Amino acid sequence: MNKNSSSIMALAPNTSNKRETVCIFGTGDFGRALGHKMIQSGYPVVYGSRSTQISNLIPKDAEVLSHAEAAQKAAIIIIAIPRQHYNFLTPLAEILHGKVVVDISNNLKLNQYPESNAEYLAQLLPGAKVVKAFNTVSAWALQSGTLDASRQVFVCGDDMEAKQMVMNIVRALGLTPLDQGSLMAAQGIENYPLQLFPMWKFPIFLSIGLTVFFFFYCLALDIIYTYIYEHNNFSFFIAFTIPNRVCPVMALVLLALVYLPGLLAAIIQLYRGTKYRRFPDWLDKWMLCRKQLGLIALAFASLHAVFTLASPLRSFVRWRTSKGIISQALNNRTEPLDHTNAWLSDSYLALGVLGYFLFVLVGITSLPSVSNNVNWREFRFVQSKLGYLTLILCTAHTLIYGGKWFLSPSAYKWYLPNIYMLSLVLPCTVLVVKFVLVFPCIDKPLTKIRQGWERTPRYPE
Amino acid sequence: MNKNSSSIMALAPNTSNKRETVCIFGTGDFGRALGHKMIQSGYPVVYGSRSTQISNLIPKDAEVLSHAEAAQKAAIIIIAIPRQHYNFLTPLAEILHGKVVVDISNNLKLNQYPESNAEYLAQLLPGAKVVKAFNTVSAWALQSGTLDASRQVFVCGDDMEAKQMVMNIVRALGLTPLDQGSLMAAQGIENYPLQLFPMWKFPIFLSIGLTVFFFFYCLALDIIYTYIYEHNNFSFFIAFTIPNRVCPVMALVLLALVYLPGLLAAIIQLYRGTKYRRFPDWLDKWMLCRKQLGLIALAFASLHAVFTLASPLRSFVRWRTSKGIISQALNNRTEPLDHTNAWLSDSYLALGVLGYFLFVLVGITSLPSVSNNVNWREFRFVQSKLGYLTLILCTAHTLIYGGKWFLSPSAYKWYLPNIYMLSLVLPCTVLVVKFVLVFPCIDKPLTKIRQGWERTPRYPE
Amino acid sequence: MNKNSSSIMALAPNTSNKRETVCIFGTGDFGRALGHKMIQSGYPVVYGSRSTQISNLIPKDAEVLSHAEAAQKAAIIIIAIPRQHYNFLTPLAEILHGKVVVDISNNLKLNQYPESNAEYLAQLLPGAKVVKAFNTVSAWALQSGTLDASRQVFVCGDDMEAKQMVMNIVRALGLTPLDQGSLMAAQGIENYPLQLFPMWKFPIFLSIGLTVFFFFYCLALDIIYTYIYEHNNFSFFIAFTIPNRVCPVMALVLLALVYLPGLLAAIIQLYRGTKYRRFPDWLDKWMLCRKQLGLIALAFASLHAVFTLASPLRSFVRWRTSKGIISQALNNRTEPLDHTNAWLSDSYLALGVLGYFLFVLVGITSLPSVSNNVNWREFRFVQSKLGYLTLILCTAHTLIYGGKWFLSPSAYKWYLPNIYMLSLVLPCTVLVVKFVLVFPCIDKPLTKIRQGWERTPRYPE
Repeated sequence: MNKNSSSIMALAPNTSNKRETVCIFGTGDFGRALGHKMIQSGYPVVYGSRSTQISNLIPKDAEVLSHAEAAQKAAIIIIAIPRQHYNFLTPLAEILHGKVVVDISNNLKLNQYPESNAEYLAQLLPGAKVVKAFNTVSAWALQSGTLDASRQVFVCGDDMEAKQMVMNIVRALGLTPLDQGSLMAAQGIENYPLQLFPMWKFPIFLSIGLTVFFFFYCLALDIIYTYIYEHNNFSFFIAFTIPNRVCPVMALVLLALVYLPGLLAAIIQLYRGTKYRRFPDWLDKWMLCRKQLGLIALAFASLHAVFTLASPLRSFVRWRTSKGIISQALNNRTEPLDHTNAWLSDSYLALGVLGYFLFVLVGITSLPSVSNNVNWREFRFVQSKLGYLTLILCTAHTLIYGGKWFLSPSAYKWYLPNIYMLSLVLPCTVLVVKFVLVFPCIDKPLTKIRQGWERTPRYPE
Repeated sequence: MNKNSSSIMALAPNTSNKRETVCIFGTGDFGRALGHKMIQSGYPVVYGSRSTQISNLIPKDAEVLSHAEAAQKAAIIIIAIPRQHYNFLTPLAEILHGKVVVDISNNLKLNQYPESNAEYLAQLLPGAKVVKAFNTVSAWALQSGTLDASRQVFVCGDDMEAKQMVMNIVRALGLTPLDQGSLMAAQGIENYPLQLFPMWKFPIFLSIGLTVFFFFYCLALDIIYTYIYEHNNFSFFIAFTIPNRVCPVMALVLLALVYLPGLLAAIIQLYRGTKYRRFPDWLDKWMLCRKQLGLIALAFASLHAVFTLASPLRSFVRWRTSKGIISQALNNRTEPLDHTNAWLSDSYLALGVLGYFLFVLVGITSLPSVSNNVNWREFRFVQSKLGYLTLILCTAHTLIYGGKWFLSPSAYKWYLPNIYMLSLVLPCTVLVVKFVLVFPCIDKPLTKIRQGWERTPRYPE
Repeated sequence: MNKNSSSIMALAPNTSNKRETVCIFGTGDFGRALGHKMIQSGYPVVYGSRSTQISNLIPKDAEVLSHAEAAQKAAIIIIAIPRQHYNFLTPLAEILHGKVVVDISNNLKLNQYPESNAEYLAQLLPGAKVVKAFNTVSAWALQSGTLDASRQVFVCGDDMEAKQMVMNIVRALGLTPLDQGSLMAAQGIENYPLQLFPMWKFPIFLSIGLTVFFFFYCLALDIIYTYIYEHNNFSFFIAFTIPNRVCPVMALVLLALVYLPGLLAAIIQLYRGTKYRRFPDWLDKWMLCRKQLGLIALAFASLHAVFTLASPLRSFVRWRTSKGIISQALNNRTEPLDHTNAWLSDSYLALGVLGYFLFVLVGITSLPSVSNNVNWREFRFVQSKLGYLTLILCTAHTLIYGGKWFLSPSAYKWYLPNIYMLSLVLPCTVLVVKFVLVFPCIDKPLTKIRQGWERTPRYPE
């Protein structure tokens, strides 16, 4: 509705019809911004203020009255005042009786107060129909008209009709109201604008940590080792070669971490013989951020794909290629085609392309609008079947790429394995465990447990 | 709302406020899972069960009573019992009179019964306000909290208020209710979770069939023929070369199949002189899966793009390049730049890039969230104008690529045309027919027919 | 809901239950198409017509009566008649009293009449409950069942219950109703289907203009100049080289144009010392189309990425490479690796890859379904922080790429700078101004102004 609403509003000044008067308590920044926008949308606005002197900051077409007078002029009163001052409303309880009172306040911290501001307001004004709304909208964006982000306004309240009235105003301002149910949803709505990607924090910190580790691991083996023992300065590997080594490793490890918690959960359930005991906390949290882990893995895979495709453009690669060709030419011979090499090179490229393709497909189904359009069966099919196929293809891609070096001693500089060997540990483990769990003798009891069966009913009936 | 709801719920335990008691009939797996989740969200839960002995599987904070007693304690009764046992509810009809009865059942097959379970329930309990809900949610996901797929819960029912009550519960559980209208929508809602990509089946089977055909066609011409007549073993072409030959062919053929049914429909309408007769069934079905055909074509085009961009990395390609350069060097000469070749090569690459770019653009507008934000005029502009432009560019790309080989006899191994020639048949036909249909003398009557005009009114007035 | 609804409807013929009769006034094309579809969905349909003779165009199962008779048979009357003929309804006002009257009309031009058709209808029939609906749906698509575009039907009206009845019909036809509030929203809804990407017009024209300019600039410097002064015919550069020079320039310039208006707004606010005065009109408009400018910039960046990755496949590039290698081989020498070059080449490639990656990330958050799932804080973080990082990376990518030519006189053909120098002017300006604005001594007063502070209150209290 993003675009639609905006264009609809842009085209519909609707000045001909009469809209009901709206009263705003408080002449702070958000109160003024909301008033401006409402007047633009054709609502007569009355401000309720302690000082009824007309301030130049208040929109010109708005009236400024005392709180009591202003409230009597309108059926809807918007409280644009911080929660700490709500108690001044107690003497107005009678005037506000039966009116729609809109709480638009936000807090500074998550769960700052035991109850939400809107519920607190409802306790102060038992006769009023309290509706929570508008707190997710930015005053600055409202006024400047640059609402290119979410136009969604969460609305909740116990009175259906009051909620409808507020939702009509929301729509008239070119925003999209989203009914969140009763006033009990207010706390969640008040917490919402304070969040900064809460589900992404752990996956991002984990990725940064692992990336730094693998980067320095590569730095040591590929640049420092070469510099010390072979007296070659490959410091420019920092810009391209090492990132393109770290990215695929990160993608593979994170992808394995997406599927590992599901396997751990299955093993725990098999061991306990019941699904009616909670998983350890860390496992619960891990399972909840699988989508984010998968998307970060996809980001690394995409970087790896573009880095790899761009590598023929590198000055170093072009120099190495011509050096090889010239040395052949100067020796007056052409090497024949190595069929094994051709097979290996084509297979790992093809596996990489297919794996990445499936990865993107699984990623697209994570888009909210796509995942809302598939049912559970379809979602599990894509995320589980296609996801595992992606993991298999990507693991095979890495295995074939690095296969020939596994047994070569030159791959173990300072007795350390190369990072593509490290990167294979987790995915191979996941695939082996999954392979074991798929066997009927293990899959059957697991399915039974997940359907509610218990191995040892604790209280025999 | 996917993420929002989840985070809102995570932050809003809402244990302070009192929620109304909910009664659940049936202590099966889904009944228990729903009860667990409701208790977590602050609802007092009463189970109605034949045996009122407390089973350890039932959530600890829930009460277990007889059906009649449990129903009296709550205004909302959730029926977590299979349809076959619904008739046990008949004696309870009086107690359930006026109450909200929620049908959450699913069937095992599409359209298993003549009427939906919810409508059957409404017939059994004429006094109850039956609401259909929750059947699209997985019990396992509900309990484990791993609801990363669709959080949408379809709700339908004839009583507005009853529906609102159920929708409030849905929201309180962190899910998004979607009002589907009256109880007549129940059958659709019950069928929904049983589907597995119903619109994708035909396009996917068609694609697999064609892919297999083209793969073996290429295998025969490129590997077997070469092996027999030229004694060259190019078996490694299976991994990369042949996939990258089949993908563009599939993309082009499927893209042509997207636009063919529209042309056939136009021809049928022109021939019949009316739009008021149904198209043949196969054409109707074909037209309904055009979007899916187009997206599969885009997938093949993407694979072709990545395969092509990755080809300079192939060991075979590098070998062939150096062989060419070395033979020039050994012959002590540099070939001059072939301007025709440079033009051809640059044009078909540029056409391919542009065609693919437009293809992706058209694909992005197929995303539900994007297509919901454009009106009909805009959607048709993108899908029709840009779509045809994509087809033109891709066809031109293939024509220029293969052009020089059309007349060469070496392209006809075993008297069979190369597959890029095959791939051009359909798109060229579509473009020619479209070109003819665009002529005013044909376009005008077609437009008139589509606006409701008939050439030969069957019953003259 | 796109797919869902369609499949639900396909599976739920719902012929068993009785739906209420619907009356349609007018037997024009849209009236007939709607009637057809309603009969298919199980609604008895009665047509109201001047001539009650049965026309063969009208669906067979529909009754045709006089307007008055038809209206009496149904609670919902759909007016499928152009606005000019609405006055014939005045005598029917009594019969339509209390009934739901649905206005489905569209106009030919934006804001053709002072009030919307629906509001005009409501004035003519003061006793009727007027609801606006269905005008955004195409008659042709409705009848042929090829509703692959938006299934959203905007509904508005002053009577809640009447709106619910209409929304139930909308759902039964397999469409998604979207409540737009009171009847005052009707004008916007009537204007909606007439738009053709209104927000995209200016950005697209600007892009075309700039593209044409840069194309001819390159043509002059790269082909004509070379032809005249060096007698080299590089006309084939038109197909690939020049597009791949224009695309990155366009991407960088447009990306800078996304961030420029924000800086201008900040400067204006700092100069004026208040945020309570409107920006100049051009700045307002510019700020509203930043998202579109950014997406077009992303499109150019994507083209540049694919063009660049495809360049090793070019016949010209392969010829140039082999020429270079052969000349080295014939001179019997291999050039050593130029470390500075390796660093430069790897850095600008890596910066390009990272910049493009972030650009795509910012682009993905512009998808409506994604931006609806983030709150304001998150949206601003991505669009502002990541956006500026993208601009920095892309500018650095261009600087390193072109750096070495800045001082070379050969880069100034006809005393004109190369286009990558031109392309750097705007982004560098934006980055410098932004850098200045970030300083605390400037950032602090700006923040105060944006929170509502004024330097010189115009009317001292």
